[in-house]
Formats: sequence, structure tokens, C-alpha cells
Amino acid sequence: MMKNTVTKKKLAFIKKLAQKKYRKLHNAFVASGAKTVLALLTSSAYSPSYIIATPAFTKQYPEIASQYENIWHIAPAAQYKAADTLSTNPTLLAVFACKTLAVPYLTTRDRMLILDNIGNPGNLGTLVRVADWYGIKDIIASPTTVDCYNPKVIQASMGAIAHVNVHYTPLLPYLQHAKAGQIPIIGGVLRGANLYQTTLPQYGGLLIGNEAIGIDKSLRSYIQYPVTIPAVGQAESLNAAIAGAILCDHWQRVI
Amino acid sequence: MMKNTVTKKKLAFIKKLAQKKYRKLHNAFVASGAKTVLALLTSSAYSPSYIIATPAFTKQYPEIASQYENIWHIAPAAQYKAADTLSTNPTLLAVFACKTLAVPYLTTRDRMLILDNIGNPGNLGTLVRVADWYGIKDIIASPTTVDCYNPKVIQASMGAIAHVNVHYTPLLPYLQHAKAGQIPIIGGVLRGANLYQTTLPQYGGLLIGNEAIGIDKSLRSYIQYPVTIPAVGQAESLNAAIAGAILCDHWQRVI
Repeated sequence: MMKNTVTKKKLAFIKKLAQKKYRKLHNAFVASGAKTVLALLTSSAYSPSYIIATPAFTKQYPEIASQYENIWHIAPAAQYKAADTLSTNPTLLAVFACKTLAVPYLTTRDRMLILDNIGNPGNLGTLVRVADWYGIKDIIASPTTVDCYNPKVIQASMGAIAHVNVHYTPLLPYLQHAKAGQIPIIGGVLRGANLYQTTLPQYGGLLIGNEAIGIDKSLRSYIQYPVTIPAVGQAESLNAAIAGAILCDHWQRVI
Repeated sequence: MMKNTVTKKKLAFIKKLAQKKYRKLHNAFVASGAKTVLALLTSSAYSPSYIIATPAFTKQYPEIASQYENIWHIAPAAQYKAADTLSTNPTLLAVFACKTLAVPYLTTRDRMLILDNIGNPGNLGTLVRVADWYGIKDIIASPTTVDCYNPKVIQASMGAIAHVNVHYTPLLPYLQHAKAGQIPIIGGVLRGANLYQTTLPQYGGLLIGNEAIGIDKSLRSYIQYPVTIPAVGQAESLNAAIAGAILCDHWQRVI
């Protein structure tokens, strides 16, 4: 097997991909960690352009190393740690091309998450993981939502980013279109119907709002099913990803 | 009102409280952010020993500032930012005494979360917030679980740490005692009964395991209700805090 070496210039390039402007410029993102990178490699949706692995990892997975021989680079963790902003223990890192697909419209045959202005990358990554758990393939996100190729989003999704598409589009026209097509929209709100006493529609969209201010006022009239998770204790709110997961779980049981 | 000044020595002390060994040594922890600090101040369970606020915050809450006049210190954010490791925009910070209570035993009249080796502070903080949402007052945690006074736990709990007690104790004897008292234990596991088809007991303990390895083998035989959240998609697992929240939500609906 060829022994490709990692150049300093390439490491500087990889490090820059932690910033959104460089991801846009190069249409590329970095994934790190064996679980995440292997999920992306085995998904047909993502093509790697550059891989760095530790000698130990390469030895452990010789088939993968030879499959990607041309772009496989071996380097000890210490050598590329500076380019890997999140891993405490780097083993495998890869650069992939970002994916941009046409925004799918909601139909009465599928379920999508619709995210309004989710700001925390950990929350978005967790919601991607939750969507994947519940078999939701597409997430529609407002342009104000954090970039799904942010390294912290990729990390929190635990590989689920390989199976779930995140589409960025303005939500107002998107919801207007859904309304015209009579597609039901569920929304997690503060003073809605008791979730435990609501029969959710089988299909449609589930709208989750910003961590601090919830769903934008301009979008609220498009929610046909405004629901609230009843609080028993003193907490004022639930984390957006937690609320999204509980709503997905209830939704799942409708089928 | 007296104008107390913040000394460099005090700032160095506060900064050190981000480390567990100093929290143990001084039996103190730091909370930052208006929401969290105000929740702790209004809870009778926590006593502040030192407060730093920005001039703007002090002006906005003159009653609180005068109530704590002796320990209230005014400093611009820039001055104490180095001591506040997490806030991007410091407004209010306080040092509180850690609370150590006798570990409560489970009875057939209440509900507790039991956490085995939760390692991620964000997960513990989120679980504290979830417990508070569902009216659960006590969390029993293995000694290997991250410290509940870790600044990231406090931050993720969004003030809920003021209402929920986290007790650290070895789980094996704890669960043995519960078993002897015939207190039901629910456990979130990978291959348990389908959660949607299980009738959960009204009271008892809900056991959540470590992010990577789940519930320790030595504890599994103490679970009377091993339950699994059914997966539809391709995700291998759910985040521990998400799984805990979904289980709490199902549990809530038993009452």
C-alpha cells in the first residue's frame, strides 16, 4: 500500500473547514472519529476527498484503507491533532463534499422535522440523531439554523448525518406551500394542547423553535396542531432537542 | 449601597472552582448567568457566599443587590470574564456552598432517576432539567457520574439544579436495598421490552446507563422493567439524556 504523507498545507486547510465560510468556499466539511467517518464512508451519499488515519486504525481496518488507497494518509494522532478541533483521541478523519439537494416538499405520505432558528450545534446534531432513530429522512431548517456541517453538529449526530438530509430554506413560504396542500403541521409551543390528550396526524411536519424564543411569531398561524409537553415540576422549559425527541416519540406511536 | 470591589485573589479562587478537586476542598461551586443564579438565590436550599454582577445587572435588579449587599460585588464583565469559564456574556456570577444530603431510599410513593456512570456534563445537566420538568426531586448517581457542580452541568441544567438533588452513592448496594424493599426499577436497555407495549409501574427508580456502555452488567439483574425505545431508522442509539427524557415522559403518563 502507498504511504501518502500529510502536508502542513493540507492540515491548515482542514483546520479552516471548522469555519462556515471556508466550508461554503470549498463545498467541503470535515468529519472525525471512527464511528462518524465510517458511517459517512458506507453511505452512498457522501464522497470523501481526503482521509487521515492513525497507523493503529489503518492496521485494524486494512480493507477500508485499501479501498480508499489514493486518498488514505497515515499520520500519528499527535501530527494531525491541531487540525482536529474536537477529538480528544483522534483515530480517523475525513474531508467530504457537502451535499446540496433540492428541498423536498412535504406530502401526506412522509414526516419531516422543520427547525426554526436552532442555534446550538449540539442541539441540531442531537435532533439529526433523533430524526434518524425515528426514520425521518429529511429536516427542513430555516437559514438562521446552525450549519449542519459544523464540526459540533457532526459530532453530536454520532454518524446520523450520513442518513438524514438537512435542507436550508426560508420557512414562511415553505409552510405556506404546506398549508395550500393541506399538509398538517405539528408545532411544539408553550401554551398548546396537552400532548398526552392530542391525537397527532400520521404524516406532515413537526416544527421545533429556537432555544430561547421558540417558534417565530410569523410562523405560528401555520401550526394546525400546537402541542405542549405537560410540566409537573418547576423547570420553565425543556431543551429544544429534548422537546423535539419527546414529540417525535409521540408521533411515532401514531403509526 | 456599599461598593465592594472584586480582588484578583478572589477571581483566581473562583476560576479554580471549575475544577472538582477545588470544589471538594472548599465545598463550594460557581454558578453563572442570570437565569441560573437567580434560580439558586430564590431556592432556600443554596446559600451564596460571594456575588459578582455587572453594573447594568445591578441597576436592573436593585432589590436583589440590596438583599445581598454584604456579598454583592460590582465589576464590568471584562474584569471577571477570565473567572467565568463558560458565559460568553457575563452578567451575574455567584459562589454557593455545595449541598450534601443523606441519600434518600426509594419508597413506593416516589420516583427517582438513577444514573450509572453518566460521563458527559451536558447530559447530566440536561437530565437534571428533565427531572425538574417531570417533578422528580432526587437523582441517585454512581460515584463515577460527573460531578453535579461541574460548571457545564450547572449551565445545561438551566437553573433546575436549584430544585433537584443529586446524591452520589454506589449503585449496587442501593439497588440491593430497593430489591429487598420490592421497589420496582425500570431500566433503559438495548434489548428490552418495547416501551410502547409496556405498562410501567407508578413509582420506583428509573435507571439510565453510561453513554457508551449502557448500564453496568453487575446492575442489570436488579431491573424488573427492562425497556427499549423502538428504533425505526438507522441510528444505532439515542443520546443518554434523550433516552432518559423519553422514558420519563412515558413514566409521567402512568400517573
